[in-house]
Amino acid sequence: MKPDHFEKLLVLYGRKPVLEALMDASLDCRTLHLASSNRSAGILKEIVDYAKSRDILIREHTREALGRLSKNKKQDQGVALDIRCPSFMSIEQFLSAPIDSATRVLALDGVTNPQNVGMIIRSAVASGIGGILYPRKGVASLGPLVIKASAGTLFKAPIISCETLAPALRQCLENGLDIVALDGAAPDSLFGDRPSRAAVYVLGGETHGVSDATRSLATRSLSIPMAGGVESLNVAVTAALIGYAAQIAP
Amino acid sequence: MKPDHFEKLLVLYGRKPVLEALMDASLDCRTLHLASSNRSAGILKEIVDYAKSRDILIREHTREALGRLSKNKKQDQGVALDIRCPSFMSIEQFLSAPIDSATRVLALDGVTNPQNVGMIIRSAVASGIGGILYPRKGVASLGPLVIKASAGTLFKAPIISCETLAPALRQCLENGLDIVALDGAAPDSLFGDRPSRAAVYVLGGETHGVSDATRSLATRSLSIPMAGGVESLNVAVTAALIGYAAQIAP
Repeated sequence: MKPDHFEKLLVLYGRKPVLEALMDASLDCRTLHLASSNRSAGILKEIVDYAKSRDILIREHTREALGRLSKNKKQDQGVALDIRCPSFMSIEQFLSAPIDSATRVLALDGVTNPQNVGMIIRSAVASGIGGILYPRKGVASLGPLVIKASAGTLFKAPIISCETLAPALRQCLENGLDIVALDGAAPDSLFGDRPSRAAVYVLGGETHGVSDATRSLATRSLSIPMAGGVESLNVAVTAALIGYAAQIAP
Repeated sequence: MKPDHFEKLLVLYGRKPVLEALMDASLDCRTLHLASSNRSAGILKEIVDYAKSRDILIREHTREALGRLSKNKKQDQGVALDIRCPSFMSIEQFLSAPIDSATRVLALDGVTNPQNVGMIIRSAVASGIGGILYPRKGVASLGPLVIKASAGTLFKAPIISCETLAPALRQCLENGLDIVALDGAAPDSLFGDRPSRAAVYVLGGETHGVSDATRSLATRSLSIPMAGGVESLNVAVTAALIGYAAQIAP
């Protein structure tokens, strides 16, 4: 087992999502976990057949142990699958490699709607963003709803995992990155901005926006100009504009 | 009644949406319609009180007649409200006024998910788009779900109504507008494009994309560059990128 193994592992759960993942030859599926309490069902046989045909290790667990693996006993349906996602990394791994000055990272700050998180990931991957700083707490977890809304792009996404956001942002600051807060009242526009160094753009949650703890760490504020008295944009739309602003800007 | 009255009228239905609209002083509420079959309920009294306090005409109808007004008898809950939206127009009204060469219009082609339609409207208004070509058929109707997802921006949106899309696009063509299809395979990027005249950008639906009838009318194709093997973006994200591309581009 490589030292990076744990950070790159996504534990997928639920029968249909697991079957779909096993059918996708582009995914690096490692171990299939089954609850010994599972009763026979057509889709379970299909899951096992696909796993065998791909030479994937199959392990049986007690119902309780499987719930601990999936971290979602209520919705795992007795099935979990380890998938190695090559672009996943820890915050330490991200910061230990050289970071290009043009790198843009998105940070999720209390984004709890899985639909939005999935759309953010899809837009971020499409726009070539350098990373998505993803706290294990306070953000919709990387489950089936996020995967569906990401249109399958989560598996390729540069997810930078951390425990909570504020300490990870402090680590980024210590490594010379800018922390940018999007703020409707900021005089400087995202679109006119030419960042001189790598930057983390904080995306606030649907209800409370960017948290105070995060805002106090920001080194710069930028606004997205809005017409028609509109006060805010959907957070996934904001993510896309940040991602593409780098490509679009002159 | 002004000749433009009908085109600018949005018939809102449902008790909570109607109450919220009546409480919003920025909206030009015209007539409150009630079904005579309504039983007394707290929220109905609130609705009537607000309408009276704003001097809004109140009309009673049979249940059937109210259903015809709301065009959604199943979900109108016996309540409908006429709201005058000053930026709504017909395709004829849009084309009869002078159109600036920098104008960008979005056209909805089979976008059936109300969540997406609402987000498109929100992004379009924020980005200052010139119009949203909105066929009465084949697109999610302008009901409570769209209004909620639009974060209330629908009432200010430049909605250009038409019966079906293809004839309206032909009218645009005859008036010298470009019809632009977004196409992942097109060699020219949306972001490098400097349109020389007003253009309609067609947004395809979630399932079938841009329809053949529409595609055959397109005068130009543009792509949005996508990294990481991503095949498409959410349609509301695409709408935002089109809207802001005009502002961002050098």
